[in-house]
Amino acid sequence: MNTYLQNDPWCIIEEGFHANKQLESESIFSLGNGHIGQRANFEEHYSGETMLGSYIAGIYYPERAERGNWKNGYSDTNEKIINAPNWTGISIRLNDDRLDLAAWDVQDFKRVLNMREGFLERTFEAVSLKGHRILVTVKRFLSMAETEIGAISYSVKSINYEGRISFLPLIDGDVKNQHTNYNEQFWNVLQTKTQQDVSHLWAQTRRNDFHVCAALTYVLYKNNEQLNVNPTKIEKEKIAGFSVGADVRIGDTICLNKYVAIINSLNHPREELTERACSLALAAKKKGWNQLFEEHTAVWAEKWLQSDIIIEGDIAAQQAIRYNIFQLNQTYNGNDARLNISRKGFTGEKYAGATRWDTEAICIPFYLCTSAPKVSRNLLLYRYRHLPKAIQNAEKLGFKNGAALFPVATFNGEESHNEWEMTFEEIHRNGVIAYAIYNYIRYTGDESYLTEYGLPVLIGIARFWAQRVSISSEKKKFMILGVTGPNLYENNVNNNWYTNYMAVWCLKYAIESIDKVKQSNFRAFEDLSKNIQFTNDEIFQWKDIIENMYFPVNKELGIFLQQDGFLDKTLTPVTEIPESQLPINQHWTWDRILRSSLIKQADVVQGLYFFEEDFDSKTLRKNFEFYEPLTVHESSLSPCTHSIVASAVGDRQKAYELYLRTARLDLDDYNNEVKDGLHITSMAGTWLTIVQGFGGMRVKDEKLHLKPHIPEKWSAFAFNILFRGNQLSIRVEKNRIIIHNIKGEAIDLYINDKLVHILAESKEEVSN
Amino acid sequence: MNTYLQNDPWCIIEEGFHANKQLESESIFSLGNGHIGQRANFEEHYSGETMLGSYIAGIYYPERAERGNWKNGYSDTNEKIINAPNWTGISIRLNDDRLDLAAWDVQDFKRVLNMREGFLERTFEAVSLKGHRILVTVKRFLSMAETEIGAISYSVKSINYEGRISFLPLIDGDVKNQHTNYNEQFWNVLQTKTQQDVSHLWAQTRRNDFHVCAALTYVLYKNNEQLNVNPTKIEKEKIAGFSVGADVRIGDTICLNKYVAIINSLNHPREELTERACSLALAAKKKGWNQLFEEHTAVWAEKWLQSDIIIEGDIAAQQAIRYNIFQLNQTYNGNDARLNISRKGFTGEKYAGATRWDTEAICIPFYLCTSAPKVSRNLLLYRYRHLPKAIQNAEKLGFKNGAALFPVATFNGEESHNEWEMTFEEIHRNGVIAYAIYNYIRYTGDESYLTEYGLPVLIGIARFWAQRVSISSEKKKFMILGVTGPNLYENNVNNNWYTNYMAVWCLKYAIESIDKVKQSNFRAFEDLSKNIQFTNDEIFQWKDIIENMYFPVNKELGIFLQQDGFLDKTLTPVTEIPESQLPINQHWTWDRILRSSLIKQADVVQGLYFFEEDFDSKTLRKNFEFYEPLTVHESSLSPCTHSIVASAVGDRQKAYELYLRTARLDLDDYNNEVKDGLHITSMAGTWLTIVQGFGGMRVKDEKLHLKPHIPEKWSAFAFNILFRGNQLSIRVEKNRIIIHNIKGEAIDLYINDKLVHILAESKEEVSN
Repeated sequence: MNTYLQNDPWCIIEEGFHANKQLESESIFSLGNGHIGQRANFEEHYSGETMLGSYIAGIYYPERAERGNWKNGYSDTNEKIINAPNWTGISIRLNDDRLDLAAWDVQDFKRVLNMREGFLERTFEAVSLKGHRILVTVKRFLSMAETEIGAISYSVKSINYEGRISFLPLIDGDVKNQHTNYNEQFWNVLQTKTQQDVSHLWAQTRRNDFHVCAALTYVLYKNNEQLNVNPTKIEKEKIAGFSVGADVRIGDTICLNKYVAIINSLNHPREELTERACSLALAAKKKGWNQLFEEHTAVWAEKWLQSDIIIEGDIAAQQAIRYNIFQLNQTYNGNDARLNISRKGFTGEKYAGATRWDTEAICIPFYLCTSAPKVSRNLLLYRYRHLPKAIQNAEKLGFKNGAALFPVATFNGEESHNEWEMTFEEIHRNGVIAYAIYNYIRYTGDESYLTEYGLPVLIGIARFWAQRVSISSEKKKFMILGVTGPNLYENNVNNNWYTNYMAVWCLKYAIESIDKVKQSNFRAFEDLSKNIQFTNDEIFQWKDIIENMYFPVNKELGIFLQQDGFLDKTLTPVTEIPESQLPINQHWTWDRILRSSLIKQADVVQGLYFFEEDFDSKTLRKNFEFYEPLTVHESSLSPCTHSIVASAVGDRQKAYELYLRTARLDLDDYNNEVKDGLHITSMAGTWLTIVQGFGGMRVKDEKLHLKPHIPEKWSAFAFNILFRGNQLSIRVEKNRIIIHNIKGEAIDLYINDKLVHILAESKEEVSN
Repeated sequence: MNTYLQNDPWCIIEEGFHANKQLESESIFSLGNGHIGQRANFEEHYSGETMLGSYIAGIYYPERAERGNWKNGYSDTNEKIINAPNWTGISIRLNDDRLDLAAWDVQDFKRVLNMREGFLERTFEAVSLKGHRILVTVKRFLSMAETEIGAISYSVKSINYEGRISFLPLIDGDVKNQHTNYNEQFWNVLQTKTQQDVSHLWAQTRRNDFHVCAALTYVLYKNNEQLNVNPTKIEKEKIAGFSVGADVRIGDTICLNKYVAIINSLNHPREELTERACSLALAAKKKGWNQLFEEHTAVWAEKWLQSDIIIEGDIAAQQAIRYNIFQLNQTYNGNDARLNISRKGFTGEKYAGATRWDTEAICIPFYLCTSAPKVSRNLLLYRYRHLPKAIQNAEKLGFKNGAALFPVATFNGEESHNEWEMTFEEIHRNGVIAYAIYNYIRYTGDESYLTEYGLPVLIGIARFWAQRVSISSEKKKFMILGVTGPNLYENNVNNNWYTNYMAVWCLKYAIESIDKVKQSNFRAFEDLSKNIQFTNDEIFQWKDIIENMYFPVNKELGIFLQQDGFLDKTLTPVTEIPESQLPINQHWTWDRILRSSLIKQADVVQGLYFFEEDFDSKTLRKNFEFYEPLTVHESSLSPCTHSIVASAVGDRQKAYELYLRTARLDLDDYNNEVKDGLHITSMAGTWLTIVQGFGGMRVKDEKLHLKPHIPEKWSAFAFNILFRGNQLSIRVEKNRIIIHNIKGEAIDLYINDKLVHILAESKEEVSN
């Protein structure tokens, strides 16, 4: 547990410099705006331990895959998020002495991540080896309004120093990832150029030819008055910028505002990159710090209105949930269907920055509730755009006739994961992509999505399942053999209940969706059918599978079996495992994990979460009570889902206990791994734990349902959601629930199964 | 199919130079003597495609493992066989023109591997770009009598050339493997030194510090008369040798005999290596070609007496079986318990040259029948010496109390294989190590082995199984979950019948062996018990497992189930798979292979082979008939075992058909892969197919049993075996069997279940 941070409802605060926690702080204090992501690397030179993290959304590199034990069908490359040219650097010199917090004496260090307004501020006093003392204040933000702009205000006040203070604002193209397979260089720097008032660096990724240009300009102030001094231009092979400074006396303050534009070939023609970057940087400077910042905070104000959660009586919980909401909004803004959300967002290299099933399972539900439908729609369109690649991917694996298998991990639709038990067998991922379409339409009511985009994806997925089932020679039922379920502590199992259930659900939903589109737009359906050679015979085959699928169950225990043979394990609850052996993934070899009854995250519970309405409460409870004690929750996606189901089955204590495991995962660094980056996707899970778990929020038959309960420790909690044009705030107190219909027309919703009508811009109170 | 070789009962013959088959020929014409192995690389410079293969038994390198998807418990290194300094090189020059068969015109090329006498000979005419024509004859052998000596006689006759012919006999230390993970250099050359009449190169492997020294000397002849000319000494950083030559006129022949000693630090003190190597080379020269060669062929004569098989009426079969016997004897001579047999022997790099379960499953049975017990005993001792490492290996995986798990692949007892489904789960390998002890004692009657060496290994293995079983929550039986059986086309299955059967057998045999040793040498048993903290409680636990082990069966079909759930597959016989998709391991992705019913080699059939006496003939037949049609035999170990069982169940046609798949596997290059090296271990299988399959040879209750039948195409076959002091030759004709008791006392044996008594040095004939 990491307890060096202060509690505060709106800020993350580090007081005193924790050099041994610098990697952790770099993750925790990360900034982002959906287009650029930046770990909290210091602007000035730092010779201590650090991991650069300067990422640009959509810019990745197809690195040659490490060849361990190769299999037919593996990809030759592993795409990964890469460090882009570093835009943050501002080297500081007192005469020839370069400021370095690892070498200088540091006092009164304070670092604050202001979540309400989305900026990072550092203040400290530093004393050079010669005894020169300065007071430094650095503030930076990545504009949420103009996402190609980053700004830094770097202020140095002399306490006892007289002499020159130089600032070197730089763009550094000499960057690499901390982990690379073969030490490959990812970037060619094509040009560095420094003009009178703007400097840029233009670089290109090798192999996949993304172009990026970063341009910087600055304003220098002395005691709040702008200084116009001639800078020295810096224009090296891989670095561009300025060196500029002024002489100070004791008490003087020099401040440099750095404005950077970072643009790339995803959004601009290559040949105009340098010109546009320079213009953008200059325009930002012209606009000035205050206006840029105001526009930025206005976006944040809107985000908070849509997604804030208030927790009263528990400041640590309050801080943590805001932190999650903040980081999620920093990671994805929903404006670009080519982008997605990776496990670590823009805060580290782990998991390579690729998109996984987390998006559909857990992030879309968050964005559905907290932003305009367009945001989730773009996440769906991301997969729609990858459909041709998913069909190719399935073909590689021996499928045909337009069957689609979406990849385990991807940037561009191609599989970038090479582990047979995942790449080829963790096929449930295909189901959740269909489920997300269902979920989106259920929440937003946007049936139009189906006709144009949803149906081809649903049919591709249905075709996959229809070919992936096989018939048991003995039982004469359809089965799905050789899969890995969401519980990754099982590999290559037969008849994973969750996968089988998901497959059947996909087939049903595809048929249902076909019927809907046929009715609403027959012509569109006919065009599609022709285009993808769809025939009604397929529907007959799907129905056969739906009716004759095998599901492993144990009637005596009243449970669904995780997979065939699960009860042949020696069932040992987590409580019987010695502390010293947890987490098992760090202490046990893989075979031991696989054959134990311990579960990373319970598949069956995941299925209960998705398909809750299909089961009666006894079934839900029996299964939850059977599986939860066996679950080690060593996936960051696990506690949230289990907490929501615990709430649903009325096990409030378990629900809160599991909530605690997810709430401050990164802030308290439970697993001693936050240095690698934040658990961005699981942050959405924490939000859902409160809203769907404690709030009991569901959408059924086009209506919002709430069944709130409040954790004992809290005095009240409130959450904001956006539902079909209504901006709602739901406040849950010990004995009452207050619904505020902030925006939109009057709305009918259900609280504890009772219909409540709330007028526009009104509040209703219901006792609980 | 590869048909460029000629049939001959004693020779492998290539007529005409097949440059496009050079890699294949390099494998096929390999020489070895158990200490050194050498692919048929040309002595002279060759600019065409070639793969160097100069190996020394026991010299390997711990290369850094490629990290694909890492798991706890994997080894950081992958040991591999490496190219040792190349001893064969003799560069030939006509003035400044270097002989190169890839550049010169080659005529009347002939390459002969003489298996009876164990040498390789090449003759050809070569015409230089200037039109100079020479007739070349090269003969080489690796002495079976003095295994540290190799000799080459390189003769060049001028047909139309007048001028100088130079020979450069060399030792080349600038060698590397064709495949390396990280392009690492394996060798440091410590010294090259050329004296008046002997030149040596001394090298050391990096990291694991093996030392090797190769010394060469030579004699030069002109028209059969020794020439004494001063050589030029060659002493470069990584190369040592001489340049020596003479002027020729048309019709003159210059011949250089090169004598090389290759010794290493496994057998000699490091500090004496150079001196000893030089002395050995000079002693070989002094002894002279003829005597060296005679001593060498005398060893081969004895080998053939012990292991030859004669096949009449099928010259291709005759050649092939002798080829297998020849290569097996070249690979392992049984003199050193630190050495073993790898899949490719000394003929290629594939499988890294490590020891696998092939040794116990298939090679020991061959050596038991064809050589003195010492040879097989040394193969057993190899594992005995690795017992401490096997215990460490098991500890790594969470086992305790002296449980031993021998590695999948090894040189020094440490696991050098990194694939969880094999490394951690292909645990049946542990069983066959116990079985080999049983097999050895059954064949040789050498019970003394048990007391000193066998029992600690058997107890270590039994302890492993006792900890590896678990109890089914549902069935309350012992089970073995999460294994990979011999059929590698299944991974991570539960209750693999073969593995469960083997585990129980190991426990039974350990108990039986403990009882035997207790009776024969109670004191020794007590010492051992104390030493390894063995208690009688363990035996009670083992008995519990023996009595309560679960075995998957299907009573209706009368078969043992390969594993739980096997009948849930859609059963599809190999005959229904389109030719274009075979072999499936080249055409299908891994998941598809795993969930199909196709079997690489049938586990159950492997079990029937090992434990034939435990089952009645109906059970044998039903299981064979169920599994064989599902088996693709894509393991080179598969057809032989299945052929033997086919013979046992009376399916003679299938037995012969499967024999054909193994008989000329390398000579006809069935799988287009002989360029990578020979299938050395499966060659033992072919031998067994004839002797145990067609010959029906078994040992039961200390007696030899034969039940011969003869393939239709053959007129007769005969095999030589050594059984407990008797050298026997068994000749099987269409209507009779003739047993010749060549050496040893009178013997009783069973032919078709009838007792036959054969006097010393006599023959007996029995009708068949």
